[in-house]
Amino acid sequence: MAEANPFAGRVEELLTAAKKKKLDCILLYTQTNRRVLTDVDCDNGCLLIDVNSAKMVFYTDFRYTVMARRVAPWLETKDLWQAKDEAKTLKKLAKGAKRIGYEGSISARKFLALQKALPKIELVDFESDVLAVRAVKTPAEIVKLAASEKLNDEIWRLAQKEIKPGMTEKEIQRVIRGFMNALGDGEAFETIVCAGANAAECHHVPDDTVWGKGQPLLVDMGVKLDGVCSDMTRNIIPKKPDAEYRRIYDLVLEANMRAIAAVKPGITAGELDAVARDYLKEHGFDKEFGHSLGHGVGFEIHEQPFAAKGQKTVLRPGMSVTIEPGIYIEGKLGVRIEDLVVVTSTGCEVLSRSKK
Amino acid sequence: MAEANPFAGRVEELLTAAKKKKLDCILLYTQTNRRVLTDVDCDNGCLLIDVNSAKMVFYTDFRYTVMARRVAPWLETKDLWQAKDEAKTLKKLAKGAKRIGYEGSISARKFLALQKALPKIELVDFESDVLAVRAVKTPAEIVKLAASEKLNDEIWRLAQKEIKPGMTEKEIQRVIRGFMNALGDGEAFETIVCAGANAAECHHVPDDTVWGKGQPLLVDMGVKLDGVCSDMTRNIIPKKPDAEYRRIYDLVLEANMRAIAAVKPGITAGELDAVARDYLKEHGFDKEFGHSLGHGVGFEIHEQPFAAKGQKTVLRPGMSVTIEPGIYIEGKLGVRIEDLVVVTSTGCEVLSRSKK
Repeated sequence: MAEANPFAGRVEELLTAAKKKKLDCILLYTQTNRRVLTDVDCDNGCLLIDVNSAKMVFYTDFRYTVMARRVAPWLETKDLWQAKDEAKTLKKLAKGAKRIGYEGSISARKFLALQKALPKIELVDFESDVLAVRAVKTPAEIVKLAASEKLNDEIWRLAQKEIKPGMTEKEIQRVIRGFMNALGDGEAFETIVCAGANAAECHHVPDDTVWGKGQPLLVDMGVKLDGVCSDMTRNIIPKKPDAEYRRIYDLVLEANMRAIAAVKPGITAGELDAVARDYLKEHGFDKEFGHSLGHGVGFEIHEQPFAAKGQKTVLRPGMSVTIEPGIYIEGKLGVRIEDLVVVTSTGCEVLSRSKK
Repeated sequence: MAEANPFAGRVEELLTAAKKKKLDCILLYTQTNRRVLTDVDCDNGCLLIDVNSAKMVFYTDFRYTVMARRVAPWLETKDLWQAKDEAKTLKKLAKGAKRIGYEGSISARKFLALQKALPKIELVDFESDVLAVRAVKTPAEIVKLAASEKLNDEIWRLAQKEIKPGMTEKEIQRVIRGFMNALGDGEAFETIVCAGANAAECHHVPDDTVWGKGQPLLVDMGVKLDGVCSDMTRNIIPKKPDAEYRRIYDLVLEANMRAIAAVKPGITAGELDAVARDYLKEHGFDKEFGHSLGHGVGFEIHEQPFAAKGQKTVLRPGMSVTIEPGIYIEGKLGVRIEDLVVVTSTGCEVLSRSKK
């Protein structure tokens, strides 16, 4: 208990949100939500936060207690999270509580067990608040995110030396995956490789399609490093691209750069999406940009904020977000250009440095 | 519809269980439960089974309908599973139904939405029945499981040529992961590598600990192949192990072999666990074997049956189960020896062939 809680700031924000919802305590079961408040990464446990006293207790099983005490010496860790004792433990913990915040993503079974164990307590889905607080990265997390994206850049540089027309999408995927595995902790998501017109499917699964000479290639990739994901999409443009591809590439690039220029504290995630979307619409592409502009990246590959139509989340320094406009024309072509940025006090820092 | 449902036997078992619980229909949302009844593998959809007519309909979104119809031409696949239409669709489907079976592992959020959409219908958690039916593998699944564990053996053989004292746990993990990636579809779970006393943490996360000369090494690994997992734990014993390590290794090995010899149809999963547990207890190790003896393996790494204290599941031919007794002494050592077996009509077939 001698060391201070390195997540005190984040906990305080969470407690402020909890007080607004008149919660007496918060129960966090999911691995990543526990991790971003403790640094402890394990697949079983419950982090209990008493809203009024700000006291945090982590319950886990014997497999993880030693590790938890080593990683978070400031945190009270108890080894009593046995399924059979859980209801009893919860009853004791919740004494006097009227409203408890839980995560809506826990299983229905878990939720019904909570209801049964705490029949007089109102359970309130509090997960969106947890995700919102998590969206602002700690300095340590930003350092990891930058390192992860830097490695992603390096892997893309190395991969470009090894891939060539004549290889299949799967073969190209294996090259990239090989580097991710050798230099990092593997893929943050299944690497997307699209040869030629396959890029029109924005979530194309790499198959045996051969990357033909003179065809563009789209690669959407992210390595995992120290538990943190990265994300970037690049296109290899043929030496002599046809005029339509070139025009569309330039439009998507301009949309990407305009959106990056617009990132700053205070803008909403929806307004940011509109910067790219409106630009493409002006040039005649509306439904061809069928997905949202971007998403946060951290311990998970898709996190808040979600830069999508109408999203009211206000960007704050420390948030990460991808900027990935695209145009997809079925049977013909697809272009997506994606950078990962971190919001700063005046604008943003672009973590992806690969040529685009 | 010309082709027959290749899962007809499994569906029939499921319907028998559903009738016992007086269900009118079953809603399956989770990816693997849908897959083991259709062969269709996709991350969004709902498989609806009408209990009385045995009619199955698969609802998914436009991204997956073409694939679903190709993989399961015998299955009626409909493209109307839009989140916004879901409540309406459900109401139509559930007309006349009084009790609907759902999976307790769906999210609390999803469950509450179901309750709201179907206020007059009783929702019954039916997942344990689905998992029990799934636990008996189809012949095609057993072929895949054997191929996956065979590749796992081969990767362990290859890895042993490349790893040596002086490497860190993470480096060793990368070697194994590299083979899994190159020869299979990657890791079935995060490979566990424990140098020396780190093996006392039975779910140790590989770190920068160096594997010292003369120290034992524990590796718990499983590759994924064709969607199917494998699982095995082996220990590299130093040339001159200290007497305590040797004694404990031999005890764990004996417990592993006794349990394997006990596997046969009719024994319960709890009785199987007791074979190994009682043996270790007789030799003075009780709480040092803090986890259960094993679990089934299939499309998921942990499936039914669970060979744990008191489990009443009766083993049947076609079930898979790991046999993984262990002894863990904090700060000192850890030994776990794990084989994957399939129950046959007279005993079991050991799929793990690596030397132990």
